[in-house]
Amino acid sequence: MGHPAEKEALPMVGNDHGGSLMAAEIAEQPVVLANLLEAGYESCRRLADVVRRRRPRFVLLAARGNSDHAALYAKYLVEVSLGLPAGLAAPSTMTAYGARPELSDVLLIAVGRSGGGGDLAQTVHAARAGGAITIAVTNASDADVIAAAEHHLDIWADSEVVTPSTRTYSAQLLALWMLIDCCRGGDTSTANLLPDAAAGLVARRAEVAALAARYRHTDRLVTTGRGYSYPTAREAALKLMESANVAAHAYSGADLLHGPLAMIDQNHPVIAVVPDGVGAQAMRPVLERLADRGADVTVLGGRGSATTANAFLDVEAVGVSEELHPVLDIIPLQYLALEMALARGLDPDSPRDRLRVPRAG
Amino acid sequence: MGHPAEKEALPMVGNDHGGSLMAAEIAEQPVVLANLLEAGYESCRRLADVVRRRRPRFVLLAARGNSDHAALYAKYLVEVSLGLPAGLAAPSTMTAYGARPELSDVLLIAVGRSGGGGDLAQTVHAARAGGAITIAVTNASDADVIAAAEHHLDIWADSEVVTPSTRTYSAQLLALWMLIDCCRGGDTSTANLLPDAAAGLVARRAEVAALAARYRHTDRLVTTGRGYSYPTAREAALKLMESANVAAHAYSGADLLHGPLAMIDQNHPVIAVVPDGVGAQAMRPVLERLADRGADVTVLGGRGSATTANAFLDVEAVGVSEELHPVLDIIPLQYLALEMALARGLDPDSPRDRLRVPRAG
Repeated sequence: MGHPAEKEALPMVGNDHGGSLMAAEIAEQPVVLANLLEAGYESCRRLADVVRRRRPRFVLLAARGNSDHAALYAKYLVEVSLGLPAGLAAPSTMTAYGARPELSDVLLIAVGRSGGGGDLAQTVHAARAGGAITIAVTNASDADVIAAAEHHLDIWADSEVVTPSTRTYSAQLLALWMLIDCCRGGDTSTANLLPDAAAGLVARRAEVAALAARYRHTDRLVTTGRGYSYPTAREAALKLMESANVAAHAYSGADLLHGPLAMIDQNHPVIAVVPDGVGAQAMRPVLERLADRGADVTVLGGRGSATTANAFLDVEAVGVSEELHPVLDIIPLQYLALEMALARGLDPDSPRDRLRVPRAG
Repeated sequence: MGHPAEKEALPMVGNDHGGSLMAAEIAEQPVVLANLLEAGYESCRRLADVVRRRRPRFVLLAARGNSDHAALYAKYLVEVSLGLPAGLAAPSTMTAYGARPELSDVLLIAVGRSGGGGDLAQTVHAARAGGAITIAVTNASDADVIAAAEHHLDIWADSEVVTPSTRTYSAQLLALWMLIDCCRGGDTSTANLLPDAAAGLVARRAEVAALAARYRHTDRLVTTGRGYSYPTAREAALKLMESANVAAHAYSGADLLHGPLAMIDQNHPVIAVVPDGVGAQAMRPVLERLADRGADVTVLGGRGSATTANAFLDVEAVGVSEELHPVLDIIPLQYLALEMALARGLDPDSPRDRLRVPRAG
């Protein structure tokens, strides 16, 4: 599906160089991931020693906006691979409502990019005062959050420009994974396949452009996934909204079967994120139900989940485990948001008022 | 705005008795709340004794579908008023991925209605095996979840029919509040105003019908709130989607200022839930930014937040604290979903395939 689709897609670019900054940042992810693997390893080892020494019994993850999806990813990872209960912090309880929970035995990980909202720094500050071990997983420019935390894990993905977060997101995921892998005694080497696998996906932008053409007249869209892929579904929905102005809703596969299934029909296509693994097995009944309804479903995942799909994007990467897949799977979904934006004459590099968003959200 | 609006609204009811079951269940909430206050008090006291004796240090809340919004409400309440960190459990980590976190010192509260998905019972079972204190806050008919938990707090809101959850939701909120109030040494008496206040809101359905008329041609809508009102915003969005097929997105006020603000314009009206209190103060800059953009904003809340709104529904109830307001605020939003459904010729009593939703979601 390589070149023909690309040729087909080009005329859709309505404005000169629209989205070129976003496109450049998406394409930089293989390099960003490779840098992080090298530059971040020692920090992760050192922090893992701190964490192991202090033996937290509960993990709180604090974040705002799309960093929240990286935090959710870390929650799954902490619960499954460290065997610790984990929760997402609700920043307003400690900031607006002044709650001062007792947090000795708690590890608080703040996930940010930069300028992510003053209340993230306040949350870290309050958690630290409450006795928590605090680690800021964020870009070097995120000064307030870094200053508030006891420790900093740099994600090495600072952006010069204010585009939709793409490389920052995959770097957050990988940094969180590296930290947790070190905490469980790993040496992060199983992630060494990621940069090449990411480059493989970057090279397939044209395939995604062809997929975007399917959605040219789509105003509403549902994304879904389970387990590690649920944060991917949520991040994809946010990206589609903020870049392409599509009303995208994300549901875990389990929740989708409760209420929201009623609204899914031919006019509400579904994008399911199902890389092979436990999440894909749990998604099987969901995909079957969607097929029963005659829903329009695009599967982004492994071949095992392709059978009932109307469109399929194979993202399997040999040797990449299910828990690392989210670092890769978001790449074609970022391209999808970009291509859908361009197809609609929108420039994702300057959403209607992105630059007016104040620092202290 | 009473009767004239009602007369205006009536012709919108396109089908015979459409939504009459949903309407009946909404209207039953004053009685349901009063029953619960009486019938649930002893259980709450007894459970609070158990909780105080075992002194949990973390609280995990497990739920599915819209019970998730009640769980989120409880999370705020636990953090602010019990001073304990709390997190929402991700059911799939303990079910699909087989995580077995060490949960002594953990209180797990499962929030359900009935038939809420087999994995909720599995989560409770796994948490109990991991050493957690487990309490099922759910209807008496929710047999699997009740059987899995060590303790049961009945919410006394069983439905004979499968309608969108309305009275179950407010009963979940109140039951959770009662439990937590007893844990902090309260006697739940400050909630005694709720049944009358709820009856006052039920009596104002016509006002809401007039509001629904504003949204007759609205396909996309944003709901927002902060703190205790954020779960209300999320529950309202789900209700609007599952009943009226509106693409409604909920954002915390803080997150709204990050990415999603870009998509808000005259075609994307906003409903802000801002009863007087800390959450309303935190919402002030958000409402100002929305006014700057010329967004169409309906405020449901106290008069202090009405100034910049295009439409306003006063929900202040004298003597009802901010933390109890969510039990009331959802009522007009349930009516809004119902009235918007009727205005579109949809029958919320039989969403396209509600009855086909399997028990084990």
